[in-house]
Amino acid sequence: MLDGMYAKLRERTLRANRALSESGLVILTWGNVSEVDRDAGVFAIKPSGVPYGSMTAEDITVVSIETGERVWGAANPSSDTPTHLALYRAWPSVGGICHCHSTCATACAQAAKALPCLGTTHADVFYGEVPVTRTLKAAEVEQSYEASTGDVIVEAFRKIDPEAVPAVLVRQHGPFSWGRDGMEAVEHAMVLEECAKIAQAQVVFGTSDATVFGFGRLDRNLLNKHYARKHGPGGTYGQKK
Amino acid sequence: MLDGMYAKLRERTLRANRALSESGLVILTWGNVSEVDRDAGVFAIKPSGVPYGSMTAEDITVVSIETGERVWGAANPSSDTPTHLALYRAWPSVGGICHCHSTCATACAQAAKALPCLGTTHADVFYGEVPVTRTLKAAEVEQSYEASTGDVIVEAFRKIDPEAVPAVLVRQHGPFSWGRDGMEAVEHAMVLEECAKIAQAQVVFGTSDATVFGFGRLDRNLLNKHYARKHGPGGTYGQKK
Amino acid sequence: MLDGMYAKLRERTLRANRALSESGLVILTWGNVSEVDRDAGVFAIKPSGVPYGSMTAEDITVVSIETGERVWGAANPSSDTPTHLALYRAWPSVGGICHCHSTCATACAQAAKALPCLGTTHADVFYGEVPVTRTLKAAEVEQSYEASTGDVIVEAFRKIDPEAVPAVLVRQHGPFSWGRDGMEAVEHAMVLEECAKIAQAQVVFGTSDATVFGFGRLDRNLLNKHYARKHGPGGTYGQKK
Amino acid sequence: MLDGMYAKLRERTLRANRALSESGLVILTWGNVSEVDRDAGVFAIKPSGVPYGSMTAEDITVVSIETGERVWGAANPSSDTPTHLALYRAWPSVGGICHCHSTCATACAQAAKALPCLGTTHADVFYGEVPVTRTLKAAEVEQSYEASTGDVIVEAFRKIDPEAVPAVLVRQHGPFSWGRDGMEAVEHAMVLEECAKIAQAQVVFGTSDATVFGFGRLDRNLLNKHYARKHGPGGTYGQKK
Repeated sequence: MLDGMYAKLRERTLRANRALSESGLVILTWGNVSEVDRDAGVFAIKPSGVPYGSMTAEDITVVSIETGERVWGAANPSSDTPTHLALYRAWPSVGGICHCHSTCATACAQAAKALPCLGTTHADVFYGEVPVTRTLKAAEVEQSYEASTGDVIVEAFRKIDPEAVPAVLVRQHGPFSWGRDGMEAVEHAMVLEECAKIAQAQVVFGTSDATVFGFGRLDRNLLNKHYARKHGPGGTYGQKK
Repeated sequence: MLDGMYAKLRERTLRANRALSESGLVILTWGNVSEVDRDAGVFAIKPSGVPYGSMTAEDITVVSIETGERVWGAANPSSDTPTHLALYRAWPSVGGICHCHSTCATACAQAAKALPCLGTTHADVFYGEVPVTRTLKAAEVEQSYEASTGDVIVEAFRKIDPEAVPAVLVRQHGPFSWGRDGMEAVEHAMVLEECAKIAQAQVVFGTSDATVFGFGRLDRNLLNKHYARKHGPGGTYGQKK
Repeated sequence: MLDGMYAKLRERTLRANRALSESGLVILTWGNVSEVDRDAGVFAIKPSGVPYGSMTAEDITVVSIETGERVWGAANPSSDTPTHLALYRAWPSVGGICHCHSTCATACAQAAKALPCLGTTHADVFYGEVPVTRTLKAAEVEQSYEASTGDVIVEAFRKIDPEAVPAVLVRQHGPFSWGRDGMEAVEHAMVLEECAKIAQAQVVFGTSDATVFGFGRLDRNLLNKHYARKHGPGGTYGQKK
Repeated sequence: MLDGMYAKLRERTLRANRALSESGLVILTWGNVSEVDRDAGVFAIKPSGVPYGSMTAEDITVVSIETGERVWGAANPSSDTPTHLALYRAWPSVGGICHCHSTCATACAQAAKALPCLGTTHADVFYGEVPVTRTLKAAEVEQSYEASTGDVIVEAFRKIDPEAVPAVLVRQHGPFSWGRDGMEAVEHAMVLEECAKIAQAQVVFGTSDATVFGFGRLDRNLLNKHYARKHGPGGTYGQKK
């Protein structure tokens, strides 16, 4: 299991990709996780289009940070490899990167909105809003789409510390997140999705003044009845203790 | 397992209650299913407040349709037993009844709205809208709450055939459904929840003209790029076949 | 397991139907998948109303593309068989077809809206919007409902390549999808549902300017406090490393 | 397993924390449950930042109600320990406390809204609205954040009996719930989340008059067709009985 070059890095990257699969954030072969070995000057990444269930450490591809070329493995690396490469080059502190199309974070990215810090759940991990990237220019899409995606992410963090806000929403695309290693990058993807899911529910609650929260409370007598069925001496619910 | 009086009826009722638990429609000890034996003049029903996991056919309670009294079992029957009784008395064709607080059907009941027939998913099982009951009067709540709940359900079906529309939304409370036996009553609860869930999503889509569906389509160049990465001769996604 | 005529086709069709069941897109006996054998001039399809759990390759029905008649199997084929037949006749490149009532795609179909391409998740599989069919005329519903459903699907693709957009929303009904085989048809149903789910969340985010996204950001001091509890030298969260 | 001081209390607290993890209300290491032993003058609580999967009764920390200091265990107690302490001191009847960031209850807390009693599901457990706490002052956040969180919870219950309404929404943060023991505190967290989820769906249904519920019913002929396919003598669905 731990044979061959970069064996530990590949094994760790495999585990992080499996964690992404088990997180419920992805379906089919969607998403990818990478992890870097700064001393070796390489990062390992999920192969393109391989099912999570049958993936082994042999399938994980290793890429040179300097050249961007594959230095180990027979499989094609993820199509998003140039995006990962751009982030590893720009940010020396990043140890792992995760990309997925999780429902609510992707919806926020498609709506072209940054996710503001709306509560302490967000504040525990992200020190302020998670930014959204600018629209790619037509030439960027044509000539170097995946690398340009990395560039606009870096651009969005000119005034933000990527360690303090370890995720971004790529406009009309979806989230990227990162951390000290691949596993933490996956955890940050999970937190981002949960924050976006809470935000979605909050938007619904936020529109409620004119509708249900302004009326519709349960009648007092029905409240009394139901509560009393289960609580107090006259209760009829449950079995004798 | 099949010893004692009403053994088959209790076993069938147990299985239907387990099916409700496994359906994901209930948490904790919520919900209850009953099944009738018309020849014996009794119905069997879930005991009150007993966890689904540890419930056995010994816990199932049997109640007389004529007297409404328990005729078998040591456990207290479900608090909602008088509601089941009222429906079995009013509708000879009903063989099983299910009550639960499934999320979207309950939300519709709390909003005091009938669920209209919005598509063929609904039409496959419910021949027209699933009605909502009227508000209970204070005296009905005070004096005979559960039996009155049964009465307002029957009242809501004065012009509706309960075989053609085998479910109802009890206002500010939640759904009741029924069928030829307990298992079919559970299946109708599942279909009702699914129809309500689809309706909820449809409401969201229905409000979309002024917002995202009126703008926000992906730029053509990005559409071309992403589609071409995965399809056609220039594709870069996946492994060599 | 592989005995009898069309054994491999039936086995493949069984597996694709099981994949639909395991995808979470259907409840009970809902949905159906078929797969074609062009050389043999037949397609195999799920039997009508048989539970996924107990279904075997013996239950799968085989139908002639030329006559539309059952040529193998004792079970009745799916009620939707004439719709599958119409698509196989119209589109020689289609190898498998899937129909289901998945929540968000069905909601979009009930809302009678095409699903626009709102992001790259959609663009990876669908080259442009997923169209919605026209309303069926009363005579079409009466005389040849399922076949007419196939006809209006084909009609909706007069200016769209069904290979480039392998799915449709049947108005007030639900999605049909297709692919090179039954399994790919199921995968396209999964992608369509996910895109519709993201679109639903996007609609919610899209209405947010006037509500929560316009206010409600966490106070700066609370942001500082929560972030600092978990990060940096003064952190109090977690165990000593 | 039951060795050492407070062994039973730690074992019970471990089980309640595992129940929280299995409830689906939390991801990663989020949330915490405590349980009190009034005679011993201590409560046991989840350690900070330890994964639920590998947690044992040895990891559970025991804290003195009088001093607020750890009296057993090597691990740091949850960061939220001072909040639990404040509630145990203020409310002698409370036997267990649960904190989590469940999606819909947290969304309601972030929206700074009390959750009104909208139906009998709520009334079965909460005797009236679940209140939301006031905003913490900057000095409270700075100097004694977690203890002040406990204080504003107690403040919100000046006119409410915490036994009758065993939960609260901490503004911009999330829910706390309590009960006779840790397990019941978790159950109340589950009920609160379910009530908030139903409320969210109800808000959506409540906005529907102007949209889908005001139009869009299935055409009568399609209703007739679909219902008749599955019901009555002319039905084509399913297998011969």
